Amino acid sequence: MTTSAIPSTLSWNGHTLRLLDQTRLPAEETCIDVTSVAVLEDCIYRLVVRGAPAIGCAAGFGVVLIAREIPASLPGAQWLQEFDSRCAHLAATRPTAVNLRWAVERCSRRVHELSPLPKDRQQIAKTIEHEAQAILDEDRRMCADIGAAGAGMLQKLLGSRRDATLMTHCNAGALATGGSGTALAVMYAAQQAGIKLRVFADETRPLLQGARLTAWELARSGIDVTVICDNMAAAVMRQFHPDGVVVGADRIAANGDAANKIGTYGLAILARHHHVPFYIAAPSSTFDFALAEGSLIPIEERARAEIAAPYGRLTVPPEAQVYNPAFDVTPAALIAGWITEKGVLHPPFNDLRPRK
Amino acid sequence: MTTSAIPSTLSWNGHTLRLLDQTRLPAEETCIDVTSVAVLEDCIYRLVVRGAPAIGCAAGFGVVLIAREIPASLPGAQWLQEFDSRCAHLAATRPTAVNLRWAVERCSRRVHELSPLPKDRQQIAKTIEHEAQAILDEDRRMCADIGAAGAGMLQKLLGSRRDATLMTHCNAGALATGGSGTALAVMYAAQQAGIKLRVFADETRPLLQGARLTAWELARSGIDVTVICDNMAAAVMRQFHPDGVVVGADRIAANGDAANKIGTYGLAILARHHHVPFYIAAPSSTFDFALAEGSLIPIEERARAEIAAPYGRLTVPPEAQVYNPAFDVTPAALIAGWITEKGVLHPPFNDLRPRK
Repeated sequence: MTTSAIPSTLSWNGHTLRLLDQTRLPAEETCIDVTSVAVLEDCIYRLVVRGAPAIGCAAGFGVVLIAREIPASLPGAQWLQEFDSRCAHLAATRPTAVNLRWAVERCSRRVHELSPLPKDRQQIAKTIEHEAQAILDEDRRMCADIGAAGAGMLQKLLGSRRDATLMTHCNAGALATGGSGTALAVMYAAQQAGIKLRVFADETRPLLQGARLTAWELARSGIDVTVICDNMAAAVMRQFHPDGVVVGADRIAANGDAANKIGTYGLAILARHHHVPFYIAAPSSTFDFALAEGSLIPIEERARAEIAAPYGRLTVPPEAQVYNPAFDVTPAALIAGWITEKGVLHPPFNDLRPRK
Repeated sequence: MTTSAIPSTLSWNGHTLRLLDQTRLPAEETCIDVTSVAVLEDCIYRLVVRGAPAIGCAAGFGVVLIAREIPASLPGAQWLQEFDSRCAHLAATRPTAVNLRWAVERCSRRVHELSPLPKDRQQIAKTIEHEAQAILDEDRRMCADIGAAGAGMLQKLLGSRRDATLMTHCNAGALATGGSGTALAVMYAAQQAGIKLRVFADETRPLLQGARLTAWELARSGIDVTVICDNMAAAVMRQFHPDGVVVGADRIAANGDAANKIGTYGLAILARHHHVPFYIAAPSSTFDFALAEGSLIPIEERARAEIAAPYGRLTVPPEAQVYNPAFDVTPAALIAGWITEKGVLHPPFNDLRPRK
């Protein structure tokens, strides 16, 4: 089995964006049909759709919805002003991942290139739809290429061995992308290359994307997966000697520092301590060369209730404070390789840098 | 405010052992009145009472209950055989902490010293009760002495500063002992010495003793406490530069390797990476000189449901495996000091070793 065993993270039928409701996994497999950008923004904030690349793909279709929602009767300049304002609002739904902003800007640029703005506003929506579909198609190809690059690297690492133990954190899988994932694409590609994998998945508090999502899609795909609490990673490294840790990224600074789900930084330190190579897997669109280093990446803080009242049950007394950063930054020095659709890269990433 | 603001973890009225039901904190403050050893064993397994020293105190009174439950009509040898068998059963309820076995053996020894066994079996129970009360009284004194030793060390560490940021994991507080705790006793004593503390408490998956118990008792005692997910510890260390990490221990090997709640080992590695001193606080009874090093300490594995179905909600798909070790072992090399009632000690712990 492969990722074909997994329902689509998102799909577009020309009018409606259908999202697999990831907040309900693994107990329920239900979808939400999104027909307005307000609903999409809510879905992005509530993590119905999550994972930097998947958010980017969804946001592209979100821009289509924006174009359809603005009254066609508005004069061109006003229409564009309204369009830009709504695009900015969508792009700000979550601050850390670069892909959301990137996808919105890419679709928005197509609109600004239309000059003069077509009187037939449907024509604008068509142009955006074409770009959004291109983002989704490219994402699928990128996932496959990331998987191939990572699996090739893993095979070199293993030499003649045909089995490997890997660890991962959060969900950087099919559920986080339009395709087969980033970190998990490496595992799917390795599996298809005949490598027998054992994967330890951190449950990833507070929202348990590792337990709920990574375990679900790996198990569905026939990969041996064991869920552990985040705080067990050090004990597992000492006991099971994993061959590598592979995780995704939400934004990568020019020097290679990588923002990813909270806990990634600690996991990278533990990997270094146990001499386990630590890899980031992400499409090249995750690189933000406007930021020299990771300390400049904005870190989203999320609601207290995610930690203090999981499933509505009070687990932290009201008198105590709670700190809930959703991401942390892993310094490049702790990262052994950046697995992208263009191969396994290293600083200074010359092939990726925008030409001056 | 101090620990006097906190209800008693356990109390004995001559007939009944009253346990604060820690599984229901912080939402409810309810007690369970234990009048049989079977109920006590269930309470120990379910973590109604938990924390190595508190389990030891409770187990002492458990041996009283055992003596009362054995038919007084049994002949001496048979009575003793039954007594030993039930004591062994109680001692095996949880395997990792040394205090449980230690307290049961200490009370049992008093019975074996009674030769011949008094015809009046109530007399035996009285003898055990005296010993169990002594264990509890000593535990209270030990907590106070651990607090004083740790606070003294902290004051030296801080120099002229009157504020400090500390981190802790799980609950090694009043709720884990008969007194004011071990790791948290250090904080209570520092607070009483006029040091303004900010404490980051790991929530401590899977059973959230840090979020539910440590936050509850520190906040009650007027200490500024912030709950974080376990996977946020590295980010917090980088951002807030804590002055130290102080945790408890369930068993310490002869070389100083310390078994404590799962996640402690990883936290010690993160502390080392960030140059934060990492301390163990525990009564000297936690040392087990029969074990040369930590790898010999048995590690309890607990039920899948603790991770996979918190609060009855399915969070791990049934097809995925789960690994749930309750403890890990932190090597002595990562520990800056062992705070005991006899002062802050270091290997080879000559003052503690049993005389040959």
